[in-house]
Amino acid sequence: MVLELPDTATVFEVAPRDGLQNERVLLSVQQRVALIDHLSAAGFTNIEIGSFVSPRWIPQMAGTAEVLAGIERRPGTRYWVLVPNRRGFSDALAAGAECVSVFMSSSEGHNRSNVNRSVAESLTELRGILREARAAGLLVRAYLSTVFGCPYDGPVDPGRVVELSHGLLEAGAWQVSLGDTIGVAHPRQVVDMVERVSRVAPPDRFALHFHDTRGIALANVLAGLQAGIRVFDASLSGVGGCPYAPGASGNLATEDMLNLLHASGIETGVSLERAAACGLFLRELLNHDLPGRYHSWFLGRRRIGEGARSRQGA
Amino acid sequence: MVLELPDTATVFEVAPRDGLQNERVLLSVQQRVALIDHLSAAGFTNIEIGSFVSPRWIPQMAGTAEVLAGIERRPGTRYWVLVPNRRGFSDALAAGAECVSVFMSSSEGHNRSNVNRSVAESLTELRGILREARAAGLLVRAYLSTVFGCPYDGPVDPGRVVELSHGLLEAGAWQVSLGDTIGVAHPRQVVDMVERVSRVAPPDRFALHFHDTRGIALANVLAGLQAGIRVFDASLSGVGGCPYAPGASGNLATEDMLNLLHASGIETGVSLERAAACGLFLRELLNHDLPGRYHSWFLGRRRIGEGARSRQGA
Repeated sequence: MVLELPDTATVFEVAPRDGLQNERVLLSVQQRVALIDHLSAAGFTNIEIGSFVSPRWIPQMAGTAEVLAGIERRPGTRYWVLVPNRRGFSDALAAGAECVSVFMSSSEGHNRSNVNRSVAESLTELRGILREARAAGLLVRAYLSTVFGCPYDGPVDPGRVVELSHGLLEAGAWQVSLGDTIGVAHPRQVVDMVERVSRVAPPDRFALHFHDTRGIALANVLAGLQAGIRVFDASLSGVGGCPYAPGASGNLATEDMLNLLHASGIETGVSLERAAACGLFLRELLNHDLPGRYHSWFLGRRRIGEGARSRQGA
Repeated sequence: MVLELPDTATVFEVAPRDGLQNERVLLSVQQRVALIDHLSAAGFTNIEIGSFVSPRWIPQMAGTAEVLAGIERRPGTRYWVLVPNRRGFSDALAAGAECVSVFMSSSEGHNRSNVNRSVAESLTELRGILREARAAGLLVRAYLSTVFGCPYDGPVDPGRVVELSHGLLEAGAWQVSLGDTIGVAHPRQVVDMVERVSRVAPPDRFALHFHDTRGIALANVLAGLQAGIRVFDASLSGVGGCPYAPGASGNLATEDMLNLLHASGIETGVSLERAAACGLFLRELLNHDLPGRYHSWFLGRRRIGEGARSRQGA
């Protein structure tokens, strides 16, 4: 048998938003700008840089308008900002955002807990934002969470996921990112889900967003690639995931995914070496260890190199 | 498309040998016996329990004969011991071993560094042991290392791997375990290698032994399953892997693999819950953190549960 894998794939980098939002350490606007500029220089063409949400709720994302104004805009790179509602959308528009992300859950329990609304209410709200965004010429990405399982409701009906995806795409979403919010997806389920959603839109309208809570994310990426998906979300060095915290996110680490893709001969346009260097920079900013595997290996290799150099110097 | 996955697979547990051998903490014979008995009670049917090697070289494996004598022998479970040479084989035989493992590299650089012999010399030695073992009615498993890449020689000719596998099977090896010693294999390479070796013997004569040095191991397991392999080596909680040490082994964690297999509906006969409990037991014995992802998640969940219970009690 031959593994059917594509020649190219895209890594959608979410560390400056999804990663940092789940961090205890608050980074300044200047630090976040530096991180994002390093990421775009490493070759990432889709970077989620912040969120227009109240800093009272999420202080980590305070000053996202300043971040957007401060970064170097590389041609061909899309800088995404997350908006939780119409007010956030207006703020993003006023700040000059060209690419916005919206989000909702596919399960009632998680959606209620997250935004205190029913799934139907969220869909209506998001469709409203999507219409406005289209009228304003913006690109909108929609996150659909708990697609493979919900921490409150348990299993999620795949038919529901298909329906909601359809509703979001029909209202003008450029892409729907299907999220395994609690890290329970498995390869067979991934292939099945991709097959189902591909009946309402071609697979290039979908991305997959895996969490590596229990280490299974890269196997799911491989299954997603085989099923025809070409865009995968990841967070630099796995930032934002803490396995010891309740509700841990456990984002898939960007470098781990780049290593899988590049080793498999799949081009991403990103330099793994430079991405890994971004991870070391982020580690310095946060001043604590990060969970990515490749990151840990890279850090160890760097330390061995430094040890050898200092021994040579002595 | 449909992922072609089997209904059953076997996890070959190597923690008591491959894992502990790479540990700084030395466990007593009694502790190792307790660990092995926990593992067999959890349902593992193939456990590598030790090594007949000089304790001057590998003090972690001292007293393997006592371990073999001390464990509870569950019917249907195979207890494997590693032998580095004819002398080790004689010792294993004298200690009443019924299942022995032998090893060699598929690359000159690694084999020379490991056992100070050429690959051809090792093959001759192993074939001699295989003949004796067969005559004595023993089962022999052969590890072939650096199959996907060598830390000294770089890429390894797959034709060489096929040839050596054939030489080992022909001399009576029950199974050849193909090892990605430095964690560089990728899914396409795995499928290609399995296709090649399957020309000299059916896939059930082979196992795959991945290292998770850079996080790619489970994707390789998924590829191996699709290519027809049914036996995978793993080490409880990833013990034996230290990402900061030169020559780090980075064994794939057993619980991570069990989670992938069970989530995919593949039966192993092992209880994941009990295996994860073995991981916590091992963590207590070694008194330090272990790298497995599922292990970390399980530990965190256990702590949250204990926190909730102690709050309820207060």
